[in-house]
Amino acid sequence: MIVGVLGGGQLGRMLALAGLPLGVRFRFLDPDAGCPSRDVGELVVGAYDDEAALGRFVQGVDVVTYEFENVPAKTARWLTEHVSVFPSEVALATAQDRLAEKACFVAEGIEPAPHAKVDTEAEFRAAIERMGTPCILKTRRFGYDGKGQWVIRSAADAERAWGEAYPFDAARTRRTDAADLILEGLVPFVRELSMLGVRGKDGECRFYPPVRNTHERGILARSVAPAPGVSDAQREAMERATARVMERLGYVGVLAVEYFDLGGGRFVANEMAPRVHNSGHWSIEGAECSQFENHIRAVCGLPLGSTSVRGSSVMLNAIGGLPDMRGLLGLPGVHVHIYGKAPRAGRKIGHVTACAQDIAAAEELAGKAAAMLRNC
Amino acid sequence: MIVGVLGGGQLGRMLALAGLPLGVRFRFLDPDAGCPSRDVGELVVGAYDDEAALGRFVQGVDVVTYEFENVPAKTARWLTEHVSVFPSEVALATAQDRLAEKACFVAEGIEPAPHAKVDTEAEFRAAIERMGTPCILKTRRFGYDGKGQWVIRSAADAERAWGEAYPFDAARTRRTDAADLILEGLVPFVRELSMLGVRGKDGECRFYPPVRNTHERGILARSVAPAPGVSDAQREAMERATARVMERLGYVGVLAVEYFDLGGGRFVANEMAPRVHNSGHWSIEGAECSQFENHIRAVCGLPLGSTSVRGSSVMLNAIGGLPDMRGLLGLPGVHVHIYGKAPRAGRKIGHVTACAQDIAAAEELAGKAAAMLRNC
Repeated sequence: MIVGVLGGGQLGRMLALAGLPLGVRFRFLDPDAGCPSRDVGELVVGAYDDEAALGRFVQGVDVVTYEFENVPAKTARWLTEHVSVFPSEVALATAQDRLAEKACFVAEGIEPAPHAKVDTEAEFRAAIERMGTPCILKTRRFGYDGKGQWVIRSAADAERAWGEAYPFDAARTRRTDAADLILEGLVPFVRELSMLGVRGKDGECRFYPPVRNTHERGILARSVAPAPGVSDAQREAMERATARVMERLGYVGVLAVEYFDLGGGRFVANEMAPRVHNSGHWSIEGAECSQFENHIRAVCGLPLGSTSVRGSSVMLNAIGGLPDMRGLLGLPGVHVHIYGKAPRAGRKIGHVTACAQDIAAAEELAGKAAAMLRNC
Repeated sequence: MIVGVLGGGQLGRMLALAGLPLGVRFRFLDPDAGCPSRDVGELVVGAYDDEAALGRFVQGVDVVTYEFENVPAKTARWLTEHVSVFPSEVALATAQDRLAEKACFVAEGIEPAPHAKVDTEAEFRAAIERMGTPCILKTRRFGYDGKGQWVIRSAADAERAWGEAYPFDAARTRRTDAADLILEGLVPFVRELSMLGVRGKDGECRFYPPVRNTHERGILARSVAPAPGVSDAQREAMERATARVMERLGYVGVLAVEYFDLGGGRFVANEMAPRVHNSGHWSIEGAECSQFENHIRAVCGLPLGSTSVRGSSVMLNAIGGLPDMRGLLGLPGVHVHIYGKAPRAGRKIGHVTACAQDIAAAEELAGKAAAMLRNC
């Protein structure tokens, strides 16, 4: 069995590290010959919209999946015509577009964050009026890690955001490459949670426990799994919501849904990622079968693995520079994952997971690891 | 950091799967372009004694290790002159030769199995006389998985063994390519145990718990970790013995020593392997830090990882044909490792590890897995 992965980043690399022991081989398509997946399978170097490269990529591959959702629609179409692709084109199209994503939540009776479609300046003004500030203007597509987002607290912010997000050319006509936009209201959440589900080809769904996430400067910094203090009722409600989305999309593979926890058992859905997700990295050591192995099992049509946890885990991203490896490896229970990327400010170059029997011990261990990451 | 591994078999593959997350990259030297390690690093295809291939192999590599002990002495010498090699040439030379291995045990006060050096037919006859039958004639070098061994129960066996092991040419002179031999007495052991130790460049030693091994037709079939019923005193004695061997050899990396447990806390040392070992595969899921990760940590001069166990594990080798994957993956707690080798009678093509909180549950799970392996 050969799995083709669109994208050769760290998610592709970790998919292969989990899939190789199952006897699965990997081929990646990535424009960067030095991408993290180069060491764990065959790499086809090419642009995602280069049909010749796509042709080489799919040759002899049994199934294609992807490790990022910003796959061009034309590429998704081309792939679907040539090979089995999981998750499907419709899942990709829905998750790519913040508006379609929210419409999907609504259609399944899941409350999304307050939001408004923004195509014109008049719609933009009216939406701010209605929603109040602070609010966030976002591109509907191709945003990630805080990119393509403008927080609006004042009229001046609104002016600047509109100018940057929706620039006009010299003739004051709309630029054809301007992104479609959405205005989102800020939700008074008590915390951010995510839930990772996996759905097999036979429709079976399994769920990892809710994860508590903390972001810094728009990038995930920290995940705690299982999130403490989530009632069984809330967990089950989140599982049902995630299952409904997966069923609606005929989903195969791992889906991540981010939720805002409003307290008192209430939550709204923020967004989804149709792939393995940074908030599931803890599962490599912290769950019986990791999100990566389960994604590969699902897209290969194999039985799903157990999502049961082993104790408690705290995952910390290593952002920017290489951490103090000797220090980290000297901490029993801390597991280090370096992705083979050149260090650069703001770049995720690895992560560590602190595992222990209970959350207090995992937090204490993570505190020690954090000091060694801050040395970056 | 780039680690060069001599040999591209499943042990090399699992070393890379454990080392890649540490940010280590791998290069392998193997005569077979289709070897299991081809997917997890750069592969130099060449014979182990081909100096041009060795030159390409060591170019830019930070440290060299190996995944089998039958490295030609000339190759070990050449490598040592060009690059850091761990474990060292002396460790390799000792473990390669059953006689030197036993002399090493004796020098450290560890009782080996009864044995005699056999260079001539007269020595062979005398040794059988002294040791009694059954006994085993073995080649001193390059035997593995029961190859190069002749069990002797009768005079006819002795005749046949001598003829096969020590053939003469037509002129009845000793053939120059005949192997040196050793005769070993059978020890009335109650069970076979192995102990895996790891020693860092700074001399720190850590030990996995004793493992109980069962062989079938000379090939390891099953390992149980931790071996039940080993007293603390016996475990500590085995740790001390293993530590003494590692210290004597200035060892760096994982060393496996096989012991015969004679009952009542007594044991003799059977043999050693200067590398990661089949009886340590359970440690991938069953220990905090696996033998593979610890070997890479050691040869790279990084701090050693925790050898603490997570519950109990039973490892079963998949020998011959591919197992029933769907069945195995449907068993929670069973972890499957397929090496990417073409199935062939008598060939280790993968292993599975059944993990559970206690030995009874792990044994029960392994029983179910065994039925799916027997489908091979």
